[in-house]
Amino acid sequence: MMAMRRPSSSVPYHHGNLRNALLAAARDVLEERGPSALSLREIARRVGVSAPSAYHHFPSLDAIAVGLAEQGAAEMGACLTAASEDRRRSSGDGKSLLRTGEAYVRFARANPALYRLMFGEGFQPASKGNDAVRDLRQRARAMIETALAGRLPAAELPVAGLFLWSVAHGLALLIIDGQAEPAKDADAVVLRVLQLGGRALARRRR
Amino acid sequence: MMAMRRPSSSVPYHHGNLRNALLAAARDVLEERGPSALSLREIARRVGVSAPSAYHHFPSLDAIAVGLAEQGAAEMGACLTAASEDRRRSSGDGKSLLRTGEAYVRFARANPALYRLMFGEGFQPASKGNDAVRDLRQRARAMIETALAGRLPAAELPVAGLFLWSVAHGLALLIIDGQAEPAKDADAVVLRVLQLGGRALARRRR
Repeated sequence: MMAMRRPSSSVPYHHGNLRNALLAAARDVLEERGPSALSLREIARRVGVSAPSAYHHFPSLDAIAVGLAEQGAAEMGACLTAASEDRRRSSGDGKSLLRTGEAYVRFARANPALYRLMFGEGFQPASKGNDAVRDLRQRARAMIETALAGRLPAAELPVAGLFLWSVAHGLALLIIDGQAEPAKDADAVVLRVLQLGGRALARRRR
Repeated sequence: MMAMRRPSSSVPYHHGNLRNALLAAARDVLEERGPSALSLREIARRVGVSAPSAYHHFPSLDAIAVGLAEQGAAEMGACLTAASEDRRRSSGDGKSLLRTGEAYVRFARANPALYRLMFGEGFQPASKGNDAVRDLRQRARAMIETALAGRLPAAELPVAGLFLWSVAHGLALLIIDGQAEPAKDADAVVLRVLQLGGRALARRRR
């Protein structure tokens, strides 16, 4: 197995370790200074390896962006799954969807630049046609549709899913971008907005 | 008044004309190739003036981004106002909000890169702290809150406004980014998602 040595320390990088170290450095740069600050040279410098060593793992900035989007999608998927499993202990599907929505917005707020990158900012290839991001999208849609299956006719599920995703995505971005006025208690505002989303899909009296 | 001559034609640029021509060229570059392709040199080249002439109007890329965001905010504001005035001829506030929401998503879909720039993509200064964008935000919120004032208690208006804005913003971006599966009839899907938003705020039986 290939190993590289950090010039400034005695910790060697094994192949997978270096890849992860480069991604971690890229993520720091992304969150600190935005997508336009990403460069292979800067990422290699932070990790303490040569630019060609970094290039070996990520031949282009787009490759790094795709790696970051995949990592983000995996982490976000785990957060949503945890929230949706939590619902099995709670009382009914309305509450579960709320918890999943809160987890969604929480992840985006905690990783604002990564979240924006996952949705195409600066790097369209990382968003469009990326398998991990597409999987996340399908998993999120499936969770929503499963939770709603008991209360809506099947034909209404795709639009209902797109609606709930729009609420969470729009809300997360408006907060990240500082477009929504800062609230004293942002968590409470998020909850109330998501509750309105659920209200639109409440069982109808027929 | 300052005038410059296009090298390739006999049409002179007066001061305001050149500014507008530069903005129009910047907008073309933005929609064709994204925010990272914006450069003063390329914009000057397209207009047929020297880079210093362009620099005179826009000393930095951020200045161009702010100019584009202001132009986008003014145009979008006009579209929303037209849609909201249209409602006075229609039957009730539910319909008016729908028309305004449709106009909102339509503008974003017709100007995807400009819309993303207005919300910070690539150029945070064009989004945060820009007076025109802030005015647009406040105007849109005021339209929504006026339309809802008859059906909700005053204390609920800010959260309700943020909710409807989240639906429109999230939906517009998911469509622009190609995250939502392409529908046979995207306009009909937009309408149905916006209708769900209205349903959340329907008058409650007390």
